[in-house]
Amino acid sequence: MTCDFFSVATKGVQGLHPYQPGKPVDELERELGITDIVKLASNENPLGPSPKALKAIENAFQDLCRYPDGNGFRLKSALAERYQLEVNQVTLGNGSNDLLEIIARVFADTASEIIFSQYAFAVYPIVTQAIGAKAIEVPAVDWGHNLDAMAKSITDKTKLIFIANPNNPTGTYVKTDALTRFLAKVPENVIVVLDEAYGEYIDEKCVDFPDGIALLNKYPNLIITRTFSKAWGLASLRVGYALSNSVIADLLNRVRQPFNVDTFALDAATAVLSDTDYLDRSRKTNNEGMQQLIEGFDQLGLNYIPSVGNFITFDTGQDGIATFQALLQKGVIVRPVANYGMPQHLRVSIGLPQENNRFLEALKDVLGS
Amino acid sequence: MTCDFFSVATKGVQGLHPYQPGKPVDELERELGITDIVKLASNENPLGPSPKALKAIENAFQDLCRYPDGNGFRLKSALAERYQLEVNQVTLGNGSNDLLEIIARVFADTASEIIFSQYAFAVYPIVTQAIGAKAIEVPAVDWGHNLDAMAKSITDKTKLIFIANPNNPTGTYVKTDALTRFLAKVPENVIVVLDEAYGEYIDEKCVDFPDGIALLNKYPNLIITRTFSKAWGLASLRVGYALSNSVIADLLNRVRQPFNVDTFALDAATAVLSDTDYLDRSRKTNNEGMQQLIEGFDQLGLNYIPSVGNFITFDTGQDGIATFQALLQKGVIVRPVANYGMPQHLRVSIGLPQENNRFLEALKDVLGS
Repeated sequence: MTCDFFSVATKGVQGLHPYQPGKPVDELERELGITDIVKLASNENPLGPSPKALKAIENAFQDLCRYPDGNGFRLKSALAERYQLEVNQVTLGNGSNDLLEIIARVFADTASEIIFSQYAFAVYPIVTQAIGAKAIEVPAVDWGHNLDAMAKSITDKTKLIFIANPNNPTGTYVKTDALTRFLAKVPENVIVVLDEAYGEYIDEKCVDFPDGIALLNKYPNLIITRTFSKAWGLASLRVGYALSNSVIADLLNRVRQPFNVDTFALDAATAVLSDTDYLDRSRKTNNEGMQQLIEGFDQLGLNYIPSVGNFITFDTGQDGIATFQALLQKGVIVRPVANYGMPQHLRVSIGLPQENNRFLEALKDVLGS
Repeated sequence: MTCDFFSVATKGVQGLHPYQPGKPVDELERELGITDIVKLASNENPLGPSPKALKAIENAFQDLCRYPDGNGFRLKSALAERYQLEVNQVTLGNGSNDLLEIIARVFADTASEIIFSQYAFAVYPIVTQAIGAKAIEVPAVDWGHNLDAMAKSITDKTKLIFIANPNNPTGTYVKTDALTRFLAKVPENVIVVLDEAYGEYIDEKCVDFPDGIALLNKYPNLIITRTFSKAWGLASLRVGYALSNSVIADLLNRVRQPFNVDTFALDAATAVLSDTDYLDRSRKTNNEGMQQLIEGFDQLGLNYIPSVGNFITFDTGQDGIATFQALLQKGVIVRPVANYGMPQHLRVSIGLPQENNRFLEALKDVLGS
């Protein structure tokens, strides 16, 4: 082959390094030839599936050969009812990742600037780079978003601001008063994305966590993104959604691929929305597991970043990647965050009690304490 | 709301009119309050699911809460083995639609020209518009691609050429000698996409149909796209793939969303690939149904475009949209193609014998013959 196809690609794509998923169990099994692996790497729901989701999937078996409903009528209606919004304010995505990408492609191009925080979700710089826009990364404060500094970073070229709330991988969150103060400062032609992928884990104890959906009416430039991959337990099926004003939703739907959410995903997501018992159990498991891990870190004398998500990021006190590798050898998969500029930290997802225990025991061995 | 968000969107998105899917059965039921609807609108496999696909989906139930394998290891390995290629030549997509979009985003931008044929698949102009590139539509000959004219349309700005083989919605195909003559003329830095979504329907009787995959070695700028939505019967699950040289595959995988194909789709697609009986039955049902429809059109004195796909496009001799609407009233959904500049034609998918019959009877009534 004589042509350098790399040089034929757009500039943005040439500089693109794709997202690195958590290491799958299958892959570790193939590599190490071990079984009984605990994966606490991808902030998945450890409970296993909602029975309502499984039932919905079985009911869709007969439709396997048929295209999904490209309009997602039933799921969008269920979401609109849940949040007291109009159906035309909902946009469905192949996970919220799809929506983050669609939003960037709708509003930004090579002449644009996109603002996000240091230590914020890795997909923000990736979607920015893919379209060749300029990334403006604003230094964090205490591992969380510095909204005042982010507001000051807005220029005439700013098209989009991403805020993860709670943030992944740090588990921090922005408070109601800070967020409303920030939104009041952002010009209306700059889109603010409030990424609430972990929003379902927030409970009444977290009193100063902002109600993003209630802010939609006041701030028409606001887009909320959410997902069924976390507390709702449907990561395998890829379904997320955006809530916004209807003009923005119309623009997002123009770029959305017609069948970006598949039939099983549509049906299972619609079904789990009514499974409040599952959501309650998910939260309870998470709260108890978080307590278990915090106590474990305290016993090991390790610092961690207080988290309101379904994961917690802790300081190993040594090289994070090496610790990650050592844990792999013991059949425990967690997530390195060196790519976030946190070379000593690791992120661990909250698992079932016995999984959390496996992790803590393995960590204790690895750290030699 | 004071801001005109439409004007905040990129120029390409402002001019974008999204793909219109075939009308879903549910929607017609809601609108007309009728049941017993026959949908022959989306070139779906009428056989119902492969048992191997259903089994694979049931086996994946326990993984519902877990993210898919972002690398698609097992499906990519199975495809590579089937086509005697390397695993790193395969890129997975959320249907081939996803790949068409990824390819456009990797190689083209607002300064680019993208060439496709008149009457070719609607997604080519859509992905072109979405990135703000210039669409070069080359007039068709006998409803099919004029490859000589397409080669002559190449300029310094040409980045990409889409060829649908067989073409949807016309069912025409480009022959081996015409394709190889064309490929020899295309500069190597211009990417040629050979979209073989309906490739599985080609049988040994179609002797002059090109073996696209065999051409990959000779033409490194060639990308083949295929799908599991048609003959493989997995439209609900959204899985397609691209075959190319490994440098191009690496670029496509950079832009591909990390979990663009879900767990059930990966597993079901891997399983059906070994179900040769299902593929044989799909082809047989299609060949017999095609014969049934052709005889029906002949009896009604209607012209049709000879097709090698799982659909056939015919001239109603009157307004196509009105005929489509009249058929809806009789519970038969077909596909208008006025958006392709074919206002008198309709496209009908090959169904089961009784479905084809329902369609022909309804058409006879509607045309008053």
